[in-house]
Amino acid sequence: MIYLPNLLNIKNEVILASASPRRRLLLNLLGIKFTTEIANINEDDFVSNEPEKIVMELARKKAMEISKKFSDKTIIAADTLVFLKGELLTKPIDKIDAYSILMKLSDNTHQVYTGIAIYDPNSLDYTLDFEKTDVTFRQLEENEVLAYIDTGSPMDKAGAYGIQDDFGAVFVSKINGCYYNVVGLPLTKLYMMLKKIGNLATN
Amino acid sequence: MIYLPNLLNIKNEVILASASPRRRLLLNLLGIKFTTEIANINEDDFVSNEPEKIVMELARKKAMEISKKFSDKTIIAADTLVFLKGELLTKPIDKIDAYSILMKLSDNTHQVYTGIAIYDPNSLDYTLDFEKTDVTFRQLEENEVLAYIDTGSPMDKAGAYGIQDDFGAVFVSKINGCYYNVVGLPLTKLYMMLKKIGNLATN
Repeated sequence: MIYLPNLLNIKNEVILASASPRRRLLLNLLGIKFTTEIANINEDDFVSNEPEKIVMELARKKAMEISKKFSDKTIIAADTLVFLKGELLTKPIDKIDAYSILMKLSDNTHQVYTGIAIYDPNSLDYTLDFEKTDVTFRQLEENEVLAYIDTGSPMDKAGAYGIQDDFGAVFVSKINGCYYNVVGLPLTKLYMMLKKIGNLATN
Repeated sequence: MIYLPNLLNIKNEVILASASPRRRLLLNLLGIKFTTEIANINEDDFVSNEPEKIVMELARKKAMEISKKFSDKTIIAADTLVFLKGELLTKPIDKIDAYSILMKLSDNTHQVYTGIAIYDPNSLDYTLDFEKTDVTFRQLEENEVLAYIDTGSPMDKAGAYGIQDDFGAVFVSKINGCYYNVVGLPLTKLYMMLKKIGNLATN
């Protein structure tokens, strides 16, 4: 049987430059074997001023950081940011901030951007791309938001929600774009990038 | 702590009228306690001629079938169908059919409809609604489609794919609408319907 990774035919060992358990789960879905390394970069430090450029800049920084130590490995890095009407929504600093963010998202459409950077040890090149998804929240009620914050789940998430959560799932009325991007790793985009890098076994 | 089902405050026992393990997983995500019963209806037998009406008719039939035996329970039934340019795409009858369906979906946008019917034992009423999601496939390559069919996964699925599969995940380039609808149970719609039925504890 031909498994999905056979189609990609990645020759080098793969490192996912991420501490996120959600990204790990998503990359596992593709069946690719990989290890993880955490890139210690300052995520508040970027020179770009457009959402897609910021997430690609930060993803590239993460890939570069890890490639210093593992220059013979294929390195996949990603960075996800949430924007509402051009304003960057970070991870909430406390419960009050989480409440404020979720109420801003209520009855509104925001944008989730993920930048991907792949370091290819054969070409020594970095391939960059990004994915953007519009996410629409229905009108939330105060008791729903408070109950969600009480679960603790919003606290470690950009935009204070996870679409794969119980509450997150029933807050989002629709999305326009890639679902997996909203979870944290746009799988189709990543797969196509790995293909382009030349690892596809077309026979 | 307030869990999501507390907000719904469902008073009766809940039955999910479905044999689908995917629907069971999705309803589990909401934290609602339920048992399952399989409704034996003829899914090819409907009088409606519009996608949204067909899925609601079939969901209602499933809920009615189960309510005959369990008239004191809240019954949730759903039916999902896939349409491409108005043509109903069923589960593939064999591997050749699966190949033909997937190649039709390639580089195209199709529609996934799920009808939901909820029987409320207090009002003796059936509440009906539906969700529609546009799903866009990127251009697929023959070796990808053949490898996917070889996994066996397409064979029990309407439209011959699962968006939550390894291959399904990298075939879909974007969706417009509810993600969970494509998996088989639109969670936000279901949650809002249960709310409307009057089970929400607003305090």
